[in-house]
Amino acid sequence: MNAPLKSSPLRDDISRARKIISPFIHQTPVLTSSALNELSGALLFFKCENFQKAGAFKFRGASHAILTLPEAQHAKGVATHSSGNHAQALALAARNLGIKAYIVMPENAPRIKVEAVISYGGEVTFCQPTLLDREATLREVIKKTAAVEIHPYNNYTIIAGQASAAAELFGEVETPDCLVVPVGGGGLLSGSILSTRYFSPKTKVYGAEPLMANDAWQSFQKKEFIPSQNPQTIADGLRTSLGSKTFPIIMGGAEDILTAGEETIIQAMFLIWERMKIVVEPSAAVPLAVILENPGIFKGKKTGVILSGGNVDLLKLPWLDNRSFNKH
Amino acid sequence: MNAPLKSSPLRDDISRARKIISPFIHQTPVLTSSALNELSGALLFFKCENFQKAGAFKFRGASHAILTLPEAQHAKGVATHSSGNHAQALALAARNLGIKAYIVMPENAPRIKVEAVISYGGEVTFCQPTLLDREATLREVIKKTAAVEIHPYNNYTIIAGQASAAAELFGEVETPDCLVVPVGGGGLLSGSILSTRYFSPKTKVYGAEPLMANDAWQSFQKKEFIPSQNPQTIADGLRTSLGSKTFPIIMGGAEDILTAGEETIIQAMFLIWERMKIVVEPSAAVPLAVILENPGIFKGKKTGVILSGGNVDLLKLPWLDNRSFNKH
Repeated sequence: MNAPLKSSPLRDDISRARKIISPFIHQTPVLTSSALNELSGALLFFKCENFQKAGAFKFRGASHAILTLPEAQHAKGVATHSSGNHAQALALAARNLGIKAYIVMPENAPRIKVEAVISYGGEVTFCQPTLLDREATLREVIKKTAAVEIHPYNNYTIIAGQASAAAELFGEVETPDCLVVPVGGGGLLSGSILSTRYFSPKTKVYGAEPLMANDAWQSFQKKEFIPSQNPQTIADGLRTSLGSKTFPIIMGGAEDILTAGEETIIQAMFLIWERMKIVVEPSAAVPLAVILENPGIFKGKKTGVILSGGNVDLLKLPWLDNRSFNKH
Repeated sequence: MNAPLKSSPLRDDISRARKIISPFIHQTPVLTSSALNELSGALLFFKCENFQKAGAFKFRGASHAILTLPEAQHAKGVATHSSGNHAQALALAARNLGIKAYIVMPENAPRIKVEAVISYGGEVTFCQPTLLDREATLREVIKKTAAVEIHPYNNYTIIAGQASAAAELFGEVETPDCLVVPVGGGGLLSGSILSTRYFSPKTKVYGAEPLMANDAWQSFQKKEFIPSQNPQTIADGLRTSLGSKTFPIIMGGAEDILTAGEETIIQAMFLIWERMKIVVEPSAAVPLAVILENPGIFKGKKTGVILSGGNVDLLKLPWLDNRSFNKH
């Protein structure tokens, strides 16, 4: 019997999650690039979650949450507040089962993201762009609808779903030396840590974070939770703080958290587009950016990289705004 | 014994070409997109030559030409005039065998393309940007070096190499109803027609051409060769005229040549980037553009599409210049 997880996912929980979601998600390809191997000095294997449905790994966790939703909740639906990929993922995963998804979005959310949620059948409620108002509006929506909240990362069912990306990677690339994963709220990183522990225990897992939003790095260094404070990074998916469920998993399993500057993140994103001919969002480029900034760690190492998503406004590319970025 | 082809490729010539080049090229993936199926009404299978080495299908033909080069020619090298993907492909294919590649490029060729040729070890000679001066400069280079000319499309060895893309597609997608292929000089289209005749004879092959460079369409309609005249299309790979070797194959095997306007080409390119999260150049988007402009032909049809290449200047994207393009 499938049900939401009440504690940190075990090996069997992740195996079961993979099985449950597999008919609904894309088994995304793993790509390599001799040009990026040459540039980085590492042997890189890119797990392309930018090709995932709804454009990001978030669809894995969202699908797992929807597919383990108690029958009695189906008619009432699910709810979340998000201006990012979780909103789209939850809306699409819910629609696949005919379940209603209520999405609270800040009124200044990019139109392209709001439209995507609506196109997936999500019901959008706008709020003021503050965390307080987002939470208050979500409480109201839940009170009115009896929908259940699906938190984007501080939720073990979500974490087990996100874990499936690294588990799939280990099925294709045997025992990489390293795995580099972007860290925002920590859902993908903690899922990846658990999958590594169970399925590829010799692999070292690194979190990759923008220097301008280095709350996970600080928390990891000080061994205490430090929240993100108004971070100004182009990697919009990585601005959130860790959660009470993700932080302990990360403390217990990450080899290190590495950071990269904004210029390197933009350069890494540009390199992935130019050399691999694929579209990734800034957050997805942060792992390559930390690899480029830490060549000593990755030189000659077989390294998995999770390209977390590809949802980017093609009319607003960072290398076009950024005057100091003159690759050409 | 491998040797350059002296007549239109037969079934065995194409099978042999596949075998010869297979250790050197990427077996590119075939991708699908439910969003683009929905939009087009067709069932589309995209053969991703944008992921090919040197960024385009041209590497297939160039590799075949290099790998069938007579031993005595190895020390003297190969030469061509090209401002596009053939130049890069030939330089890289030649380097793989330690053979010298002399590339004549117009002095106004985009810097990014010149740099790519040089990075692949090609020796660049600049010329005036006219066909006359390109040909004269190439003759001089050949006179001086005794290199052999490898024409980008009017060459049976090249055609047999390009044919391998469609042949691979038929190995993955059984008997599509249609195959849509961009047409510039006609190397890829004539190769695709031959592979279809030999390996998937029930499939109808359509050439896809910009309306603003519709010389192949005119030639096909009038059943006589009509050259391209100063065409103004964003699809820079498709501005060339057909050749004496490609035109007869196209006359004998294409179901039709279909054209698309510039706006539709840009829209199709944008859709492929946005929905499939992959980078393609304008020429590669022309097949989807003609499918979107001719829904009656492709509705409900299992349709192969060759995404011919992904070499595009990421700093100059057409939807950013084009004022009348307001997808958002």
